[in-house]
Amino acid sequence: MTRLEKQMAFIEEIDKIKHITRQTYLADGSRKENDAEHSWHLALMALLLSEHAEREVDVLKAVSMVLVHDIVEIDAGDTYAYDAEAQKTQHERELRAADRLFAILPDDQHAKLRALWDEFEEAKSPEACFAHALDNTQPAMLNNASKGISWEEHSARLSNILRRNEVTAKGSKALWDYSYSNFIRPNVEKGIIDDDTQKEQ
Amino acid sequence: MTRLEKQMAFIEEIDKIKHITRQTYLADGSRKENDAEHSWHLALMALLLSEHAEREVDVLKAVSMVLVHDIVEIDAGDTYAYDAEAQKTQHERELRAADRLFAILPDDQHAKLRALWDEFEEAKSPEACFAHALDNTQPAMLNNASKGISWEEHSARLSNILRRNEVTAKGSKALWDYSYSNFIRPNVEKGIIDDDTQKEQ
Repeated sequence: MTRLEKQMAFIEEIDKIKHITRQTYLADGSRKENDAEHSWHLALMALLLSEHAEREVDVLKAVSMVLVHDIVEIDAGDTYAYDAEAQKTQHERELRAADRLFAILPDDQHAKLRALWDEFEEAKSPEACFAHALDNTQPAMLNNASKGISWEEHSARLSNILRRNEVTAKGSKALWDYSYSNFIRPNVEKGIIDDDTQKEQ
Repeated sequence: MTRLEKQMAFIEEIDKIKHITRQTYLADGSRKENDAEHSWHLALMALLLSEHAEREVDVLKAVSMVLVHDIVEIDAGDTYAYDAEAQKTQHERELRAADRLFAILPDDQHAKLRALWDEFEEAKSPEACFAHALDNTQPAMLNNASKGISWEEHSARLSNILRRNEVTAKGSKALWDYSYSNFIRPNVEKGIIDDDTQKEQ
């Protein structure tokens, strides 16, 4: 296969991401969104919000990371953020998916996209922390806009949301503050998110 | 409104792009794709295929352009590439949409995204020609993969396809050659695309 044939084979293969449904509803609550839509949304956010990142980010790298971060779900499926059972096997399933999918590309691009995904998973670099901040803020925004349906369906608990969002503040304190005040807190007050933090103490 | 409030208002508003359905089917033919999915796909292509651009491109600029290029369709709707009637009013509808939508952002980002969209529309710069090459190649790839349903539904004619793709070769001769040989020509031979170029001479 020529280089362009390999690239186009990958580009056609990843069309399947449009079938991977997430647990988040569109803002108007009409249906759940899929990974392609979610990744597009994050990429736009990366372009517009990089000024709020905690450490300086390479915008092209951050955009590339969010465009690529969910491709493994073509094979591994979407694992809901608060599904503890599915999370036990998530990393292994996603590693196998990364091995298969990125290998369709020419070697140099295989290595590049794999490194980008590994860096996202490690969640340490400025771009990875920022990407995770976006990846957590976007569903909170949509859950709030869609009147909390997804949180209700999953009996969301504040303690879980706070734990998952530790990386959000590391990526962008401004985004975390915004998300907590505008999306999360109002839904705790409405009783849609269960405030179990008192009970835990 | 604070700067972040304006940015988040825009980010929530553009969620509506996920409702804008295109005439192209997903590769498996199961349903039509929408603008968010299409834009995500183009962004990945911009990352992977910039080496094939006719002139050197700024990759971040090209990626940004394809992420943004269809946002105006939130108000203006999708105009099918070969619908001559709708195309008469397309530019005016899209200009009004650009005026409303990008103005939700802080002034500097409003100006930046508007300039990016204007440049795409003008289809002259290296990034704009490359973006149009991607914007034409991706649906041809999906139409071929989905067994030409969309071409059949619209009684596609080769003369129209060739005219629309003049910019594809300007953006990337390699991509145009690939698209013609692998996606378009085979469907002319199957009779799915009507070869009206002989009749016209």
